[in-house]
Amino acid sequence: MTPRPLDRLLKPQTIAVFGGREARRVIEQCDRMGFAGEIWPVHPKLEEVLGRPCYRSVSDLPSAPDAAFVGVNRTLTVEIVRSLSEAGAGGAVCYASGFSEATGELGDGAALQQALLEAAGDMPILGPNCYGLINGLDGALLWPDQHGMQRIDRGVAILTQSSNIAINLTMQTRGVPIAYVVTAGNQAQTSLADVACALIDDPRVTAVGLHVEGFGDLSALERLATMARRSRKPVVVLKVGRSEQAKRAAVSHTASLAGSDAVADAVLARLGLGRVQTLPALLETLKLLHVAGPLASHSISSMSCSGGEASLMADAAVGRNVEFPALQPQELQRLRRVLGEMVTLSNPLDYHTFVWGDLARQTEAFSAMFDGGYALNLVVLDFPRGDRCDASEWAMTADAVMTAAAATGALAGLLATLPENMPEPIADRLMANGIIAFCGIDEAITAAEVAAGIGQAWDRPPPLPLLDVSSIDGEIETLTEADAKVELAAFGLPVPQGLVASSPGQAAEQAERLGFPVVLKALGIAHKTEAGAVALNLQYMQAVSNAAAAMPPNAGYLVEKMIDSPVAELIVGAIRDPVFGLSLTLGAGGIFVELFEDSVILPLPATKTDIHAAISRLKLAKLIYGYRGRPKGDLEAAVGAVSATADYVVKNAASLEELDINPLMVLPEGHGVVVVDALVRRRR
Amino acid sequence: MTPRPLDRLLKPQTIAVFGGREARRVIEQCDRMGFAGEIWPVHPKLEEVLGRPCYRSVSDLPSAPDAAFVGVNRTLTVEIVRSLSEAGAGGAVCYASGFSEATGELGDGAALQQALLEAAGDMPILGPNCYGLINGLDGALLWPDQHGMQRIDRGVAILTQSSNIAINLTMQTRGVPIAYVVTAGNQAQTSLADVACALIDDPRVTAVGLHVEGFGDLSALERLATMARRSRKPVVVLKVGRSEQAKRAAVSHTASLAGSDAVADAVLARLGLGRVQTLPALLETLKLLHVAGPLASHSISSMSCSGGEASLMADAAVGRNVEFPALQPQELQRLRRVLGEMVTLSNPLDYHTFVWGDLARQTEAFSAMFDGGYALNLVVLDFPRGDRCDASEWAMTADAVMTAAAATGALAGLLATLPENMPEPIADRLMANGIIAFCGIDEAITAAEVAAGIGQAWDRPPPLPLLDVSSIDGEIETLTEADAKVELAAFGLPVPQGLVASSPGQAAEQAERLGFPVVLKALGIAHKTEAGAVALNLQYMQAVSNAAAAMPPNAGYLVEKMIDSPVAELIVGAIRDPVFGLSLTLGAGGIFVELFEDSVILPLPATKTDIHAAISRLKLAKLIYGYRGRPKGDLEAAVGAVSATADYVVKNAASLEELDINPLMVLPEGHGVVVVDALVRRRR
Repeated sequence: MTPRPLDRLLKPQTIAVFGGREARRVIEQCDRMGFAGEIWPVHPKLEEVLGRPCYRSVSDLPSAPDAAFVGVNRTLTVEIVRSLSEAGAGGAVCYASGFSEATGELGDGAALQQALLEAAGDMPILGPNCYGLINGLDGALLWPDQHGMQRIDRGVAILTQSSNIAINLTMQTRGVPIAYVVTAGNQAQTSLADVACALIDDPRVTAVGLHVEGFGDLSALERLATMARRSRKPVVVLKVGRSEQAKRAAVSHTASLAGSDAVADAVLARLGLGRVQTLPALLETLKLLHVAGPLASHSISSMSCSGGEASLMADAAVGRNVEFPALQPQELQRLRRVLGEMVTLSNPLDYHTFVWGDLARQTEAFSAMFDGGYALNLVVLDFPRGDRCDASEWAMTADAVMTAAAATGALAGLLATLPENMPEPIADRLMANGIIAFCGIDEAITAAEVAAGIGQAWDRPPPLPLLDVSSIDGEIETLTEADAKVELAAFGLPVPQGLVASSPGQAAEQAERLGFPVVLKALGIAHKTEAGAVALNLQYMQAVSNAAAAMPPNAGYLVEKMIDSPVAELIVGAIRDPVFGLSLTLGAGGIFVELFEDSVILPLPATKTDIHAAISRLKLAKLIYGYRGRPKGDLEAAVGAVSATADYVVKNAASLEELDINPLMVLPEGHGVVVVDALVRRRR
Repeated sequence: MTPRPLDRLLKPQTIAVFGGREARRVIEQCDRMGFAGEIWPVHPKLEEVLGRPCYRSVSDLPSAPDAAFVGVNRTLTVEIVRSLSEAGAGGAVCYASGFSEATGELGDGAALQQALLEAAGDMPILGPNCYGLINGLDGALLWPDQHGMQRIDRGVAILTQSSNIAINLTMQTRGVPIAYVVTAGNQAQTSLADVACALIDDPRVTAVGLHVEGFGDLSALERLATMARRSRKPVVVLKVGRSEQAKRAAVSHTASLAGSDAVADAVLARLGLGRVQTLPALLETLKLLHVAGPLASHSISSMSCSGGEASLMADAAVGRNVEFPALQPQELQRLRRVLGEMVTLSNPLDYHTFVWGDLARQTEAFSAMFDGGYALNLVVLDFPRGDRCDASEWAMTADAVMTAAAATGALAGLLATLPENMPEPIADRLMANGIIAFCGIDEAITAAEVAAGIGQAWDRPPPLPLLDVSSIDGEIETLTEADAKVELAAFGLPVPQGLVASSPGQAAEQAERLGFPVVLKALGIAHKTEAGAVALNLQYMQAVSNAAAAMPPNAGYLVEKMIDSPVAELIVGAIRDPVFGLSLTLGAGGIFVELFEDSVILPLPATKTDIHAAISRLKLAKLIYGYRGRPKGDLEAAVGAVSATADYVVKNAASLEELDINPLMVLPEGHGVVVVDALVRRRR
């Protein structure tokens, strides 16, 4: 049953709380944040809680509450949720654990979770096994613990599967304006992506940060991506699961499947969702997105009053998709005028201390750079300790940055190399004035990279809907190479001219028919090369029959024209991921894909543009583009072959278990490509 | 002239200060830090500064000062340094800039720097173009600016080329006990490595952090590594220069050559010096090294009261040289007893909140893990904001960690995922009690990785002294392939059986003499393959003479036995770096080294152990070790060939400009290796 909209739950006017200590804490948090609506404690025995009269049950309440915090045991949770749903409540936070995340000893948690879902019906629920939500805009908290937030008017939403991480993030002192914090525990009914969709609709929400261990509901993620794009409110994701340990932890913790990390990466990129790897990077990226949304390009500038930071900035950009373009003549002239002859002008710029303490000249120096058309302008400034030093000249520098940004209309960030060197009041003031208060060089570079990546994705046409992940049951069969090639050829994939044979003698005859040289393969054998079931470059009939006779027992022979001198060998495979379904993997063919880890994931369906982009990310692509005087490969034919493979996979999505084209030989430009070997496994 | 020891300069009893505003600030800083020695201002006109009577010149001083801060213009600096040296002062900080780092407009800064050096004679000087030093142990500061430090008894030394970064690092609030901060500007006479050598001798210094843009003096770095190892005081280096921009910035800023970053990496690793990439990682690593020195292994444990952090920890270790080993039966039993049945036991461990608020059980849970024999035990704990929350249960958890660490004798770190969630008083208290107060997951993992790397390096025999970098002048000559092979063969490198010929006809005869199949190459031609100057697998005389006749104009022919079916192809090259001199580079041969970036640097001289280790770091090594049923390569022969190449390079170090063996074919085990092509360029 599709739950009703989440608005009443997320922005309640009336809150009912169920339970003892946790329910009391919810009321405390609402009071502390100045919640203006009504709070109704429900308890079988207590008369009042924190000055509010207690109700005995849902039916005693003045009306159906907009939101309920259900802080009782798991069995009782199901009953209360049923009553709330029947009464027409707007939604509930289910705090109790012991549902599908619980293992054997606790009895059948999965069945109880199913019962909870049925009890909820179309009433939205968060959890079970979660802390709930903090709405810092309205001061409405369904949150049974302390936190570090204060009321604000506008800000980012942070959604995480981990309640503890939620709490810790609220304790930040780096100027992140947090509007909402939501945890969704087991995401039994409503996923974090669902919640994110609802929050993105709130005009006071500027951007969304998701910390997730797995994506339960891929279509919700796609919906979120579409909404984010439409409303131009970017989403950044910290998804764990790069390690096997993290994947196991996710399963035991919230019963989420993490899926393959490489596939997750490709899917997030396709959807235009940013990705970061650390909590500080999540917060820094959110600050940028809050102030500016996605960036228009990867071009940034940096200024620091010391060469030490200029070098660190330059180094931090190595291997990252951000650029410090060289300064242009007009900038050089203007910077030279204000900074004098002693300063070596470059980007990142060490502007020295000649203008230090001079508000007008500092402002002009910053303005000269900010006018350069960069997507983001960083000014490095670590404040001294307020308890031991005088920071007035630093405050003046911050003023100069704000003035220059306002005058030029450019986006600027003030960056402390150590997070603690950005005092919270300064960070808050900067953010309120549209200047990003960055903590940490690497995190700022990440933020710029991610924000530019989102901007780039939004500049492309919207992605096609992802391939449906459902698959059929049935026994798995492995096609022979000959059969596999027939199937692929039907989709337009070029395969070598070939003929099958049932005996060594017949193989020799078929070879004669094809014309020499030929390749001989024994059919029905896995790992043919290792098994001695492949003979290359056979030149005459006797050589064919001898080679065939020497091969291991088999299901017949395949004789093919020998393919020679490819420019490059690719592998094109399909992989089925438990979360993300089928996608293609492209890589350097033969043994190189594993040896040199040169592969990319291509989510399906894929346009030719997607395929070109995927190939360009391979190291091997250089070979196809023409490397060091070698001939170019037939790129268009390679793209066409990958596209045909994608069609084949999409068409066979429900039954396909495994597909491996290895190698797909890329011949010189104009000579096409050839599927030299292929493996297809599928369910009957 | 070798300067005298730095002791008087670094730990002065008497300080003379020269100049106006900067000199006054030096006195202020000393007063603030409670310097107990004498301070003598020297000024031509002033009567007193901050209550101290002024002297008119060096000759008026009561005695030769231990240390002098020279805060006057660059010309006068030379004169004062001369007077100080003649008077027998212990050393001087030269604050002025405009020496060798200065470009054209300022006149000949390099000549002035030479004059300064001569004026100093054997008196140690820091700079020019530097802020000087802060000795936080004795409160002695030759430092003309504010800073965030306080007096301590024992701590780390931080040395940086950037005065601004020095200041910012002193502002940290994360519990780093900083004993010394030193900047050395142009390092005209005394390098940061020299200073580090002197500081490592101070028993109150526990570890050294270096932030450098280039290493002026390689032998000083080697001396430092030796002293660090001998005194068991580890050194960690943040060296910038990964980017071209950073390299340029270094040259313009402090006139340091950065050298190749990959070579720097290899040299630092060989010397047992740790390396980090960011300022926060530098500080976090120093905290670990201060508390514990190098780690005995890469095995670490982690505990958090939430699965969210457990997953983040596991992910942060991906691709890093740290391990979270599986829990052992005894640990499992003990953890099960204290944590109960609900907790999934693993490492990283989510210990849940069942023992939260219970000091005894928390202590037992931590002790159970700490007894597991890990080199480092991390407990993740973010403190709530003190201004908005109650942190008493967090303080109790910190107590439990301290008690458990004391009881087990194990090394523990308390880790806040956001730096601001580690309050400074807590960090100071933890550090004072031998618990590392870590800020940031990634930084803590880096610290563990670096500390374990240093431990591993110190467990190996001390490295051989690095090859002298000096080279001779002279015209560069390129040897023919035949001559190059003769030279290499003399060092024991196997080359193909081969004969030279001067005409196509003679080439055919030589081929007949060698036996077919053969390879034919035209001599004296660069990029032979691209130029059509190589013919492979020639089977009879006519084929040889035809091929020879078709080749471009040349300096004769080389006919060689054809080498077939290598297991792997390596490239072995020598590179000359402006800073680090000659080293070898090993990589995947042919085009793969550039395409797949599979190469390692081997500083010289190299032992066979070094060579084995270097090969093992290549992705291609898997092929040599026997990959997916393929034959193993002759590893010992490959190591022998690299060793012979290293001998050749060492022997020819002064004249060699370039050496490229590509490919070195590695044949199946027992069949050796062969130098198939070689290029030698050297100075006459």
